[in-house]
Amino acid sequence: MSVVTLLTDFGTADGYVAEMKGVILRLAPGSGLVDLTHEIPAGDIAAGAFTLGRSWKTFPAGTVHLAVVDPGVGTARRALAASAGGHHFVGPDNGLLSDVLPKTGFEAVALQPPRDAAPTFHGRDVFAPAAAALAGGAALSSLGQAVADPLRLRAARLERRGAKLVGTVVHVDRFGTLITNIPGPRVEPASNVRVGAYDVELRSTFADMPPGDLVAFVGSGGTVEIAVRDGRADATLGLARGAEVTVKARSK
Amino acid sequence: MSVVTLLTDFGTADGYVAEMKGVILRLAPGSGLVDLTHEIPAGDIAAGAFTLGRSWKTFPAGTVHLAVVDPGVGTARRALAASAGGHHFVGPDNGLLSDVLPKTGFEAVALQPPRDAAPTFHGRDVFAPAAAALAGGAALSSLGQAVADPLRLRAARLERRGAKLVGTVVHVDRFGTLITNIPGPRVEPASNVRVGAYDVELRSTFADMPPGDLVAFVGSGGTVEIAVRDGRADATLGLARGAEVTVKARSK
Amino acid sequence: MSVVTLLTDFGTADGYVAEMKGVILRLAPGSGLVDLTHEIPAGDIAAGAFTLGRSWKTFPAGTVHLAVVDPGVGTARRALAASAGGHHFVGPDNGLLSDVLPKTGFEAVALQPPRDAAPTFHGRDVFAPAAAALAGGAALSSLGQAVADPLRLRAARLERRGAKLVGTVVHVDRFGTLITNIPGPRVEPASNVRVGAYDVELRSTFADMPPGDLVAFVGSGGTVEIAVRDGRADATLGLARGAEVTVKARSK
Repeated sequence: MSVVTLLTDFGTADGYVAEMKGVILRLAPGSGLVDLTHEIPAGDIAAGAFTLGRSWKTFPAGTVHLAVVDPGVGTARRALAASAGGHHFVGPDNGLLSDVLPKTGFEAVALQPPRDAAPTFHGRDVFAPAAAALAGGAALSSLGQAVADPLRLRAARLERRGAKLVGTVVHVDRFGTLITNIPGPRVEPASNVRVGAYDVELRSTFADMPPGDLVAFVGSGGTVEIAVRDGRADATLGLARGAEVTVKARSK
Repeated sequence: MSVVTLLTDFGTADGYVAEMKGVILRLAPGSGLVDLTHEIPAGDIAAGAFTLGRSWKTFPAGTVHLAVVDPGVGTARRALAASAGGHHFVGPDNGLLSDVLPKTGFEAVALQPPRDAAPTFHGRDVFAPAAAALAGGAALSSLGQAVADPLRLRAARLERRGAKLVGTVVHVDRFGTLITNIPGPRVEPASNVRVGAYDVELRSTFADMPPGDLVAFVGSGGTVEIAVRDGRADATLGLARGAEVTVKARSK
Repeated sequence: MSVVTLLTDFGTADGYVAEMKGVILRLAPGSGLVDLTHEIPAGDIAAGAFTLGRSWKTFPAGTVHLAVVDPGVGTARRALAASAGGHHFVGPDNGLLSDVLPKTGFEAVALQPPRDAAPTFHGRDVFAPAAAALAGGAALSSLGQAVADPLRLRAARLERRGAKLVGTVVHVDRFGTLITNIPGPRVEPASNVRVGAYDVELRSTFADMPPGDLVAFVGSGGTVEIAVRDGRADATLGLARGAEVTVKARSK
């Protein structure tokens, strides 16, 4: 049984996600379907790229990851299927795959929409059939012409400035925790993290703090996060995605 | 492995949907479970009928579709299992199956609630066991007495008026797009769609328009839809389900 | 195929639940994954215990139930795996398993977090691997040292007072129905239920009442519930979890 994950901005109130799953189960019976999330904000490609880039890693080799955040559906933007790191990825060529395709060491092809594809629902008519084909063992190269230059989003700011490392909040999670793009190993342990008007102490876990206090730590995705124990850091700090975060760079 | 889909108005915050799934997996181990949606507004049979009527089609033949929007649970309303078009359907006899049972060419039976069924949760105690039986290969006729007259909702208005076709918004989706009951093939191509105070041009896809503009097109369900590129048509137009939409009927 | 259910307070907007599922599918391929719910209010252990305690029962014997509502992740609280009633349970030792572990007749062990477990995401790095091991047939005793005293939440009030039984609203469901801890068999049939300022008649189902009326009945979980037909009892009564409910105790 091959696993197919799905990530979209479709929500779950309509039947759109189910229509894609029906296609996959018809073309690749017995596939194991797993939702990554369907609550990406409508059209927010960067949010989709972040969540896809983090969630695929725990799945078994050979998993097919189908991602559709596709405000340009029906335009000339390409449709992609790709393989990297032993996993497969299918989605629009709009940057959504930025965090899963390495700079080198990937293969990608452009999918040809079938003539009768609904121009507003490539998720069902283009991407789901491609995901099913890969789940069924089809070779990537059989799905389309090779693509060397998938579109990539501009990476969020992360730069060295003297002894400091300046990064960016790239995601706010359901608990209000601010997740940055600053890799834990590049930060001086037990130093302070500057975020908004606050200096927040870097700890090993947020459980070390009294409830209500701000705390920074290296999160489960491997980067610096800022949280409030039993509260919301986004509300406490008045910050959102894009906010600047400064740390002390690790001395060798 | 047979597939069982589930559509309810139970939401996903409680464990009600999971209790139904547990019953199915106990009685029909190995079934593949797929959520259509559980966010039908509480008691909104018409909304459930619409989403079920659209979503079942992509699934493989033999799929069992379990639908529970059941404000009359515990009353004398019948409980149904039915087969049509190679698929099975299970749910209350309150119109929920209106869009999946053709006028002719279906079989239906009335399920007999077991004596110990909870009067407030036929989803778990009546419908899930019936769905599991069908998933396991039971004959429909073994589940109850034949029913010839399942209850049907009155269809939304769709009528010819001179050279015009007057239809109805039957659903507003998660993106705020208005979905009508006007079949695409009955509309004159490249004509205008009248909705509220606006004349909206019929295009082949909403991607042809600048962001913020209203656009009409034949959607992925085969009927006319009205959308705002990168926005919400329901908010722009101040319209909801039930609104009247007029198009130019296709000349032969 | 073994079944693994998941209950968390992670929501479904982030990929956290999916990361746990990826781990399970990598370690125990072919597992059948079922969501109980991921909408437990953040950190609300009692709500998680209630929903887990009610939902597990319909699943087949041998099912593994993975539950993570874990405000103390990263502290010294123990991590548990347990077996009772032919089912397995995995989660933090903070009371979350209170309603599924009987006073006697269970086995439990303390899981040892792997050295590289993220201190903020034991769901992925401690609990999911343990659930996968049990799904794959590992003996509970192989997972850790025996634990005799799992932490239990204080049970909600339920006491006899003369001819009365005084209980508590332990959950408000998606329909606004108040669910108490008063077992149906202990209540005098056709008596009144006192809740807030109202006396509500105990019926066999809420369908016996006109829309908008308050009604009490023995719900699908076996305890007294108070509902409003086609409405919300919580709003009508201005009551929430913790409210007192008084009934007439059944005379022998």
